[in-house]
Order: sequence, then structure tokens, then C-alpha cells
Amino acid sequence: MNIKPVAKYLVLKTIEPEVKTKSGLYLPETAKEDKTPNMAEIVAVGTSKKIAERGLKKGDWVIYSKYAGTEVDLDGTKYMLVAVNDILAKIEK
Amino acid sequence: MNIKPVAKYLVLKTIEPEVKTKSGLYLPETAKEDKTPNMAEIVAVGTSKKIAERGLKKGDWVIYSKYAGTEVDLDGTKYMLVAVNDILAKIEK
Amino acid sequence: MNIKPVAKYLVLKTIEPEVKTKSGLYLPETAKEDKTPNMAEIVAVGTSKKIAERGLKKGDWVIYSKYAGTEVDLDGTKYMLVAVNDILAKIEK
Amino acid sequence: MNIKPVAKYLVLKTIEPEVKTKSGLYLPETAKEDKTPNMAEIVAVGTSKKIAERGLKKGDWVIYSKYAGTEVDLDGTKYMLVAVNDILAKIEK
Amino acid sequence: MNIKPVAKYLVLKTIEPEVKTKSGLYLPETAKEDKTPNMAEIVAVGTSKKIAERGLKKGDWVIYSKYAGTEVDLDGTKYMLVAVNDILAKIEK
Amino acid sequence: MNIKPVAKYLVLKTIEPEVKTKSGLYLPETAKEDKTPNMAEIVAVGTSKKIAERGLKKGDWVIYSKYAGTEVDLDGTKYMLVAVNDILAKIEK
Amino acid sequence: MNIKPVAKYLVLKTIEPEVKTKSGLYLPETAKEDKTPNMAEIVAVGTSKKIAERGLKKGDWVIYSKYAGTEVDLDGTKYMLVAVNDILAKIEK
Repeated sequence: MNIKPVAKYLVLKTIEPEVKTKSGLYLPETAKEDKTPNMAEIVAVGTSKKIAERGLKKGDWVIYSKYAGTEVDLDGTKYMLVAVNDILAKIEK
Repeated sequence: MNIKPVAKYLVLKTIEPEVKTKSGLYLPETAKEDKTPNMAEIVAVGTSKKIAERGLKKGDWVIYSKYAGTEVDLDGTKYMLVAVNDILAKIEK
Repeated sequence: MNIKPVAKYLVLKTIEPEVKTKSGLYLPETAKEDKTPNMAEIVAVGTSKKIAERGLKKGDWVIYSKYAGTEVDLDGTKYMLVAVNDILAKIEK
Repeated sequence: MNIKPVAKYLVLKTIEPEVKTKSGLYLPETAKEDKTPNMAEIVAVGTSKKIAERGLKKGDWVIYSKYAGTEVDLDGTKYMLVAVNDILAKIEK
Repeated sequence: MNIKPVAKYLVLKTIEPEVKTKSGLYLPETAKEDKTPNMAEIVAVGTSKKIAERGLKKGDWVIYSKYAGTEVDLDGTKYMLVAVNDILAKIEK
Repeated sequence: MNIKPVAKYLVLKTIEPEVKTKSGLYLPETAKEDKTPNMAEIVAVGTSKKIAERGLKKGDWVIYSKYAGTEVDLDGTKYMLVAVNDILAKIEK
Repeated sequence: MNIKPVAKYLVLKTIEPEVKTKSGLYLPETAKEDKTPNMAEIVAVGTSKKIAERGLKKGDWVIYSKYAGTEVDLDGTKYMLVAVNDILAKIEK
């Protein structure tokens, strides 16, 4: 089963804290809550030209606008469906 | 009795959990609430060009924006009337 | 006394449950509330081109967006004045 | 003293229940509240072309959108100042 | 000290009840609150073409949209700064 | 340290009551609150053409829309950053 | 790990009080809360032409609109992702 976003939408997947740490992101051991809840990995992109123009592609880590997007749980994984205009920045690992 | 959506609207029908499971979607037995409340099947489409351009057609499973749409109960079945711009993604079975 | 909608507006009239049943709509006897409160019959249409383009005409049964429209009571009958963009679907009897 | 509406505005005057009844509108004797609070008579129109195009003129009875308009009390009479886009229908007597 | 409105704004001055009465407006002696709180006199106009096109000029009495405008107290006089689109009607004395 | 507004923004500085009085503005001695909280002096303007077209420049006293703007405290002075569209009038001293 | 803003977005970093003081900004010793919470340093800019046209670049200190932006915590540093239209002014040190 596969999610294929429509038009200007992207499918994002939450990044696990240990993966974030391996990528060089500092996460204090005592942190009780994830300080980067709006950081996620692009798993699929819609066909909108704007997505390509902004250099957003599968595998990129991005920060998206808080309160944006629709959450879905598929096969035990949590995904976010977010419009391209709510992608604020890329994280370069 | 038949619903024929106008212009940019689509009629969606809730997918039963057992149908979702057969399609390969993992649904933990102990799940108390459906984790994919925004997933539904397209049962009819309006005449808007945008619907065709986005490759949306009868039988497709889609995810739609939360809070979007108007619910109707017809002949004991629950339908959602949703505008094309609120269709976020297709699910490929 | 007659209501003639202006421009993009339509006048809708609530359909009585027994009429709905005769038209083939299943209404469980024990139903305590009408499950199709947003279904109504078009009794008059405004002059807007969009209304004709969408094939909406007097006598059609339609579903309109919840919260849309202005209610009026005329001669003991309850009417809804609804804009064409809030008509979501036609019901084919 | 005279109100002359500006541009797209119309001045409406509440119609008294007995006048409504004489015009053929059924008003049950026991009715405790006016069921047609949004019905009023046009007493003056602004210069906007849209008003003429929609066939709205002094003397017409109209239904306007609920919550629309600004109320004024002049010489003991209650008037509503309503924009043309909030006029939903004409009542043909 | 003088207020000169910018662009599409007008400066309005509240009209005293006795002035209103002299102008022919009926004000019942027992009235405890001014029934025409949205009626005011234009004391200055901005440079916007729309103001002239709508025939609004210094000295005119107008009705403006409720909740519109910013109130200022200058030299003991209360003024309203209101945009031209919130001027609904002129009062002809 | 200097604030240089961007594009359509202006920096305004609150005018002290004694300065207002010297400029000819009547301020009753017993007044407990400033009746002209929305009056301020322009201390810097952005590059937007609209600002010049409306004749707004450094040193002008203006009235701005209530609730508009972002307040900043710099070096003990309170400034307002306000967009040109929220400048309603100039005060001619 | 590096944040690269998309299109019209900028990444801002909070400026520490002691840095602000060194730059000549007066901060009373007794101040219990930072009076310039909306002042920050640009650490990266998106590709939007508007950002360059407004002379905004890395290293600039700016004031941004209150309530604007999305906060992120990366490697123990707090960043703001803000759209160019919410940058109100530059601070010249």
C-alpha cells in the first residue's frame, strides 16, 4: 500500500530521534519532548511544478509550518500530508 | 437513488475496516478507533476538469483534508461530499 | 406570493420524509432524526449562468453544504435560500 | 429627512405584519415571532449598476441575508442598509 | 490642530442630538439612547477618487457601517476615521 | 542603533502628552488616560512608493488604525512598526 | 546540520541580551523580560527575489511581526522561520 500525493501535496514521515541524532542533530539525553516536531522526511511528492522548482524531492528532510497538514496512520507509521507552501526549509545533513 | 456530484465535488464512501485489511492495510486488532478516518473510496465525480487532470476517478481510494466536506446518510450508507481541492492523496492498493 | 431568487441564488424546499421514502430513499422506521437534513428540492433558480451550466433546475433534488443558506418561512413552508456554489450534488430519483 | 444610499447599498424598511398579511402572506394568528424577519421593502437604491441589472427597485419586497446590513432608526422607523450582494430574492406579490 | 485624512479615509464628527432635531430628525424626548449612533457629519475627506465619485464631501451627513472606523478624541471632540467603503448612505436634510 | 523600516512599513514614536499640549492639542488636566493613543510621530519610512504618494514623511504626526502594528522597545523608547495602509490621517500642527 | 529556507522564507536566530548590549542597545539591568523579543539575526535566506530587493541578507538584525513564524530548536539553538512579508525593519548597528 502506497500513498501518492495529489498536485501540490507532499507526504512526510516523522524522523525517529535516533535517526536525527545519527544525522548530527544534537538531542540532549534529558530532553523529554522532541524539540523538532515539525521536522520530517519527504517520502513522496505531488505533480505540482512548484515542488520541483523549490528543489524538494524524496529523501529530503524539511521543516513545515506548525498546524499545517493532515495526519494519517498507515500500517503503523504516522504520515503528514502537507501542501508545498507549508514547507519552510530544507535541512542539509 | 443515486448521488451525482456537481462541478468540483466528489462523493466518497467510508471504507470498512475489514475491506481495508484485505487491501493490505495493517490494522492492529486491538485498535479501538480507526486510524484512517480520512481515507475513503470515490463513488462519483463532478464534471470539473481538475478532477480528471489529477487522475481521480471512481473506485480510487483517497485521503481527504480533515474537517473538509459535508456528510450525508443515504439508504443507511454514510457518504462524504468533498471538493477536489480537499483531496490530498491517492492510495495505491 | 412567490419567491424569485436573485443572480446566483436558488430557493430550496425541504422534502418531507414520506416523500423521500416514496422516491426510494431508505428511512429506518426507528430513525429519530432525519439523516438527510441537507437534501432539498429546487423550487426556483436565479439568473446566474452557472446554475444552468451545472444542470440545476426546478424540481431537482439536491444536497447543499451544511451551514450554508438563509432560512425563510413563507405561508407555513420552510424554504432555504442557497448560493449555487453551495449546491454539492444532485440526487437522481 | 431622506436616506440616499451610496454605490452598492440599498435602504430597506421592515414590513408590518398586517401589511404582509394583506399581501397574501399567511401569518398564523398565534405566531409569537415574525417568521420572515429578513423580508423587507426597498425604499431607496444606490447607483451601482449591479442593482439595476438584478432588477431591484424601490417598492420591491426582498429577502436579504441574515446578519447582513446595518440598522438605523430614523424618525421612529427602522431601516436596514444592505449591500446588493446580500439581497437573495424578490417576493412577487 | 487639524486632521487631514489619508487616501480613502474620511474624518467624521458625531452630530449632537439637538442639531439632529433641528434638522428635522424626530428624536423622542424620552429616548434614553441615541438611535442613530452611526450617523455623523463629514469634516474632512482623503484624496481617493472614490470619495468624489460617490458624491461625498465636507458638511454631508452620512451613515457608516457599525464597528467600522477608528475613534479619536481631539481637543475634546470625538471624531471617527472611516474608510470610504464603510460609508453606506447620505442623509439629505 | 537605528531602525530602518522595510518596504511598506513606517516606524512611529509615541508623542508625550506635554509635547501634544505645546502643539495646541487640548488635554484636560484631569484626564486620566491619553485620549489619543493612536497618534504618533513618524521617525522613519520604508521605500514603498505608496508612502511618498500619500505625503507621509519623517516628522509628521499621524493617526493609525487601532490594533495595527508591532510594538518594539529600543533604548527605553517605545516604537510602533505600522504598515502604510494603517495610517489613517495626518495631524497638521 | 544546516537549515536552508525555501522560497520566501528566512531563518532567524534570537540575539542574546549581552550581544544586544554590546551593539549599543540599551537594556536596563533591572529589566526582567527582554523588551525586544521580535528582534533577531538573519542566518539564512530563501531564493525569493523579494528578499534581495528589500536588502535583507545574512547577518542583518531585523524586527519581525509578532505571532509570525514557526519556531524550531536545532542543536540547542532556537531559530525562527519567518516569511519575508513579516520582516518589518532592519536594525542598523
